Amino acid sequence: MIDKGSLIILSGPSGTGKGTLLAEFKKVYGSESIVYSVSDTTRAPRPGEIPDVSYHYITNEEFNIKKENGGYLEYASFCENQYGTPKKFVLDNLEKGIDVVLEIETVGARKVKESYPDAVMVFILPPSLDELKRRLIGRATESMEIIEKRFEAAKEELKLAPLYDYVVVNDSIEKATYEFYSVITAERLKTKNNKKIISEVCK
Amino acid sequence: MIDKGSLIILSGPSGTGKGTLLAEFKKVYGSESIVYSVSDTTRAPRPGEIPDVSYHYITNEEFNIKKENGGYLEYASFCENQYGTPKKFVLDNLEKGIDVVLEIETVGARKVKESYPDAVMVFILPPSLDELKRRLIGRATESMEIIEKRFEAAKEELKLAPLYDYVVVNDSIEKATYEFYSVITAERLKTKNNKKIISEVCK
Repeated sequence: MIDKGSLIILSGPSGTGKGTLLAEFKKVYGSESIVYSVSDTTRAPRPGEIPDVSYHYITNEEFNIKKENGGYLEYASFCENQYGTPKKFVLDNLEKGIDVVLEIETVGARKVKESYPDAVMVFILPPSLDELKRRLIGRATESMEIIEKRFEAAKEELKLAPLYDYVVVNDSIEKATYEFYSVITAERLKTKNNKKIISEVCK
Repeated sequence: MIDKGSLIILSGPSGTGKGTLLAEFKKVYGSESIVYSVSDTTRAPRPGEIPDVSYHYITNEEFNIKKENGGYLEYASFCENQYGTPKKFVLDNLEKGIDVVLEIETVGARKVKESYPDAVMVFILPPSLDELKRRLIGRATESMEIIEKRFEAAKEELKLAPLYDYVVVNDSIEKATYEFYSVITAERLKTKNNKKIISEVCK
């Protein structure tokens, strides 16, 4: 068995298709050796969200206690709501040789990397800025003003791609999903993760 | 386009199925973005070998001139014959963004890594020592004495696996070949090989 699983961080600005990629990935490449980190949040569930799949919904008090006990790999506040990545779930699975996929924005990603330096960071790129804008407009659920704001935020986030270990260009969802899986497969083959297997074979 | 290709070194003791894996790989995953390094040798072709596919057959004089001009990434002598990995073919292809696969024994692999530190080193492991011995016997072309010698040499080589970047256990040829391809795919996705693409997207 592999020595321990890899913590795979997936980031990418809105419009890069990160959510679609992850859904496709679960469908095509899902297996017992991969789990997905679900964040805790103090905000109320939104329509369509599924408790313990979209988020674990907890109270402010529960969140603060867990935070004070070092229960989060990283945490942050947005609009008076708290969000955090539960540490125990992640570390327990890695210990069992299971890979943990964590979808998180760039600031959180860097915090996780600081507290867990072995984390493998993957950044999803759009094929181009023009295409990114088209995708943001295509969603058609927001005003042009908000779309422009999202677009500017995305451009800022894209500047952080060089800090990641891998980049995946999402020009085709099948290709991008396959590439993401290749990264996970290759990480499982790293010599540093297979010391037990090597000594087992040579015995 | 990718900044440059990766030099993929493939090693593994005899009996690990390295040759079979590479043949299967060429058949299933061969593409225009992967080429295979062919060594120069001063020895005579053996029955079944194909010139410029198995080896480039050259004279001692040609070999020595090339060697003195720094034309080899590594070279070595066995049984009075010289063998070398031509440098120009490898570097020219990497420059064009094409990956170069180089099958080479462990001593040569380390020499290549010294002269080209970006090389990605992949080691093929047998499922177990017992299985390795069965495969060596299964070839049935050699005396038990020679098989024992090969087996002892293989056990020594296996100790070098921890020096490699990746290990692939060849318990199923399809799985091992797929894993080898995943390593190559993942290397192509490394941020350090995609600076041009990142700056292109963000333009």
